Amino acid sequence: MARNAIVGQSGGPTSVINASLAGVFQVCQSRGADTVYGMNNGVAGLLEKRVVDLSKSLKSDLEIEMLKRTPSSFLGSCRYKLPDMDKDPATYEKLFAILNELEIEWFFYIGGNDSMDTICKLSDYGKRIGSPIRFMGVPKTIDNDLMVTDHTPGYGSAAKYIAAVMKEIIRDATVYDTKSVTIVEIMGRNAGWLTAAAALARAEDCEGVDMICLPEVAFDVDEFIAKVENLMQEKKAIVVAVSEGIKLADGRYVCELSDDARYVDAFGHKNLTGTARYLSNRVSAALGIKSRSIELSTLQRCAGHMTSRTDITEAYQVGGAAARAAFKGHSGEMIALKRLSDDPYQCTTEAHDVHEVANFEKKVPLEWINQDDMDMMPAFLHYARPLIQAELTPMYINGLPRHIYLEND
Amino acid sequence: MARNAIVGQSGGPTSVINASLAGVFQVCQSRGADTVYGMNNGVAGLLEKRVVDLSKSLKSDLEIEMLKRTPSSFLGSCRYKLPDMDKDPATYEKLFAILNELEIEWFFYIGGNDSMDTICKLSDYGKRIGSPIRFMGVPKTIDNDLMVTDHTPGYGSAAKYIAAVMKEIIRDATVYDTKSVTIVEIMGRNAGWLTAAAALARAEDCEGVDMICLPEVAFDVDEFIAKVENLMQEKKAIVVAVSEGIKLADGRYVCELSDDARYVDAFGHKNLTGTARYLSNRVSAALGIKSRSIELSTLQRCAGHMTSRTDITEAYQVGGAAARAAFKGHSGEMIALKRLSDDPYQCTTEAHDVHEVANFEKKVPLEWINQDDMDMMPAFLHYARPLIQAELTPMYINGLPRHIYLEND
Repeated sequence: MARNAIVGQSGGPTSVINASLAGVFQVCQSRGADTVYGMNNGVAGLLEKRVVDLSKSLKSDLEIEMLKRTPSSFLGSCRYKLPDMDKDPATYEKLFAILNELEIEWFFYIGGNDSMDTICKLSDYGKRIGSPIRFMGVPKTIDNDLMVTDHTPGYGSAAKYIAAVMKEIIRDATVYDTKSVTIVEIMGRNAGWLTAAAALARAEDCEGVDMICLPEVAFDVDEFIAKVENLMQEKKAIVVAVSEGIKLADGRYVCELSDDARYVDAFGHKNLTGTARYLSNRVSAALGIKSRSIELSTLQRCAGHMTSRTDITEAYQVGGAAARAAFKGHSGEMIALKRLSDDPYQCTTEAHDVHEVANFEKKVPLEWINQDDMDMMPAFLHYARPLIQAELTPMYINGLPRHIYLEND
Repeated sequence: MARNAIVGQSGGPTSVINASLAGVFQVCQSRGADTVYGMNNGVAGLLEKRVVDLSKSLKSDLEIEMLKRTPSSFLGSCRYKLPDMDKDPATYEKLFAILNELEIEWFFYIGGNDSMDTICKLSDYGKRIGSPIRFMGVPKTIDNDLMVTDHTPGYGSAAKYIAAVMKEIIRDATVYDTKSVTIVEIMGRNAGWLTAAAALARAEDCEGVDMICLPEVAFDVDEFIAKVENLMQEKKAIVVAVSEGIKLADGRYVCELSDDARYVDAFGHKNLTGTARYLSNRVSAALGIKSRSIELSTLQRCAGHMTSRTDITEAYQVGGAAARAAFKGHSGEMIALKRLSDDPYQCTTEAHDVHEVANFEKKVPLEWINQDDMDMMPAFLHYARPLIQAELTPMYINGLPRHIYLEND
């Protein structure tokens, strides 16, 4: 009987999720897995038995290097939530039948909160039925909102991208000798980690953003406008970073105040875009000043052309560590990053029970937020700065970054 | 008496406008200008005598290299249009008095259509009064809409950025196994050059965008929705590139159809944002499909972190060529880029009477547009591909691209 591994990717894309895939793949191969399968579109695809033999796509060191430089899930993704195993055992029976047919011994899932919920449920079910399959979670999310890990792979590159484009937006916004307010909307539904990264823009060559608004702090529109007005006494051009998820004291999202048509997705999540546009319109109307809104949108999670080498390396490491742990017999765990020191930055990996991770959210500590000045405290900068260090140059072919794509059988 | 030069930057930022400044500065210095002044905020600042001695900011080769890597106008910009010299001679008298006081012999202005209008008027007025000052224009605009030049410095880098992020957006948009339409809005009020650059994304590793809509072709919303519906028969995830300036057959901008508040700026230009959002809402409503809009916004004109080395080099060359021409006695001209061949790509510079440039707009030739398929013809790809070649690596310090900033006296 063959001893095979399988790996899937789930949830929103990041620019380093494929480095984790490379780590899982290479360690599984070196530890002697006969075949390393990839799930097309995560567990949703696995349920339809859509899998690929990864060794056919990843044949050379060059292809592994391309994979590390390719943003967004190489295997495709899904937003599939496993049902309760007591209410719907048939789904589990089907999944385990497919895994047994594929002779899977090691199962890896790269993703965020929802994906760790999948690892939780599969390992719990596996225990119940006495399956020998090992289930390991590999953390991934630009949102940096997973528990037990110091930070999540994906966050460093997104933070670097956000800080770099904020510097560029600030240069662009301050070029004229006229009054203007630029409001930049950054991802993060409930946790402000990504928006906080705008604070990294400030340096010898950049004044930095003038305000940072996180979902961790209740937002007041009138107070915001008053602060903008106040800032305009001293500076002509103001640049503000706001999270898409900022909320009023009564719990409503700021973007819900706008008249725009709003959508709720299949999972009941509200579409949160429009926060910056709403605030920009309010500032223009209240202060009679030119105001512009910019949404960083999906660009911030798939900017493979500018990644943090630290992040790429750690994404690879957590993938490799998950494979090593599974081969040692671990199951029902997620690999976390554990920081040993800030300066010099040192970080290692450790395994945690996935029940400590699934369905929890880690927010920005309130003591890292300067609520009066709407800015980040030095503690945040010490935390985040190491994560954006160093670069991994894209492979440019014919003027553009080259990616690797999955050739389905 | 000193023999001095002065240089200004005007209009919207680009990521290579400072390479032209470097070219003007270095050639003026090497040809023996006593002082090279920079205008703060272009002619608007010059009228207030806000000038700097550039040798104080640009003291070393390292600073020149930083300048080439710094996006958005180093000297600041303006959107000032000189009045008619017969109606308002006082403005001209004031400007020439300041230039004479600064002992200016050579005057350079880096910009687009409006800036060439400034060179036109100043050189015409100079001739009228017998001034010995030489006035030269240096082309700059991401829009690529200037006459007589094969292309404009700034376009290549913006095109490279657009093509690279379209590849990333396509990877991000196609990651789920569900139906979706992503509509990306790209700058370009009347000329579709930037939106056309989305066609460069297609390569061995990328299917490319599914439709490209330029302002050169009248747009029909119902026809657009029908084409999307048709495409969805074959593909699950569609990505479309639209110009912010697409218009209906009756001349109205598509974005004017939306209910959003609209602003008209001080020059009577309509604010054109909202085109993609409007179309995305229409597609969702008509087809019941998830649709997302993305505006590349100012990111596309100030992305100093990813520039075309070809573009940076040519931006430097046109600045240097303008200085050489002025020192030879040319005036009232703009330096144009003249393509000698596509493959291998060769390009040189030549001077043109600025009257041929000012206040004209160059559009994408209709024969380069495949109107049925809403795509670009190979002729466009042959034209644009050389302009995005090669890279100039940013100087990363502490994880972020480092820029140089003007220290005012």
